[in-house]
Amino acid sequence: MNDAQHQKRQQRLKEKVDTRIEQAQQEQGILMIFTGNGKGKTTAAMGTATRAVGHQKKVGVVQFIKGTWENGERNLLEQFGVPFYVMETGFTWETQDKNTDTIACLNTWQYALKLLNDPEYDLVILDEITYMISFNYLPLDEVVSAINTRPSHQNVIITGRGCHRKLIELADTVTEMRPLKHAFDSGIKAQKGIDW
Amino acid sequence: MNDAQHQKRQQRLKEKVDTRIEQAQQEQGILMIFTGNGKGKTTAAMGTATRAVGHQKKVGVVQFIKGTWENGERNLLEQFGVPFYVMETGFTWETQDKNTDTIACLNTWQYALKLLNDPEYDLVILDEITYMISFNYLPLDEVVSAINTRPSHQNVIITGRGCHRKLIELADTVTEMRPLKHAFDSGIKAQKGIDW
Repeated sequence: MNDAQHQKRQQRLKEKVDTRIEQAQQEQGILMIFTGNGKGKTTAAMGTATRAVGHQKKVGVVQFIKGTWENGERNLLEQFGVPFYVMETGFTWETQDKNTDTIACLNTWQYALKLLNDPEYDLVILDEITYMISFNYLPLDEVVSAINTRPSHQNVIITGRGCHRKLIELADTVTEMRPLKHAFDSGIKAQKGIDW
Repeated sequence: MNDAQHQKRQQRLKEKVDTRIEQAQQEQGILMIFTGNGKGKTTAAMGTATRAVGHQKKVGVVQFIKGTWENGERNLLEQFGVPFYVMETGFTWETQDKNTDTIACLNTWQYALKLLNDPEYDLVILDEITYMISFNYLPLDEVVSAINTRPSHQNVIITGRGCHRKLIELADTVTEMRPLKHAFDSGIKAQKGIDW
């Protein structure tokens, strides 16, 4: 490709992007979903939290199945006033008791509801909540209703595999993280600072 | 599903996870790639940076085509000693000059090389570098060689659409972010604190 062709291609690209920016002028809180089996769902949510905090936005994080182990992003973001509410029983496949898991889940959901009703919060992250719905710990309708009635400027991020299609329909932005490769599968240990 | 069935299913899940953890005992720096057309690539990289910094790891970020506008994650992470080197000309479809873009790209790459040779860095993020390779601003072989000869404990993250298959082959973990929906396309404006 010569320079003139290159410039022409870049010009077309610029026009396309400019047009899309012009057309997208509606300001409102959005529902974003990071789903799929690949790595990067919680991580992308935490990256968005970091970004929002960097712009002095108010962020709250509710983690539905993270364990009790140390958590790098929490260490950092809590210093900026981001509350982390982590479901007490940790991974549900460690506890294996449907009743206690359901109670823990519903307690965690009560905390999430507070954030989803509080207009001070610009961004609420419901990390790994999809599993709570799949396991029937949490009624889908309650989640849909809370999202529909939240303050209109509030952004919400949902993460987790196998997101229910009703939530996908409700969402503004949905990314499916597809695993093309995973280091864990080729025998490399999960690492502090990278994997948690 | 009754309680006994539920417990049996969770037990199987736990055994599967435990086996995978046991098998994955090799400790080494990994190459992670976030590619695809969906939202969350840079964001997942920044989430990993936040996580790593939260564990007192040393992180460096090189951004190949981000513009000069304010950047939320940078505001926050720089406070923790994370250097951000951002390619001067910003988006290449704004500048549209192959020669100046190539020079800017190669200058940025020189900075990336410093990090990729420095064992003090636990994590180096090469944000949107894939475009530099697609546009022929940066030779693929140089990137492959720098990644192959980096300190063995160093983790590297590459982000951007259309990642070259040679880099995919080299990587340990690759996630393709697939856009199922994008708010931008339905007329919602890109938002400070969420999109940048």
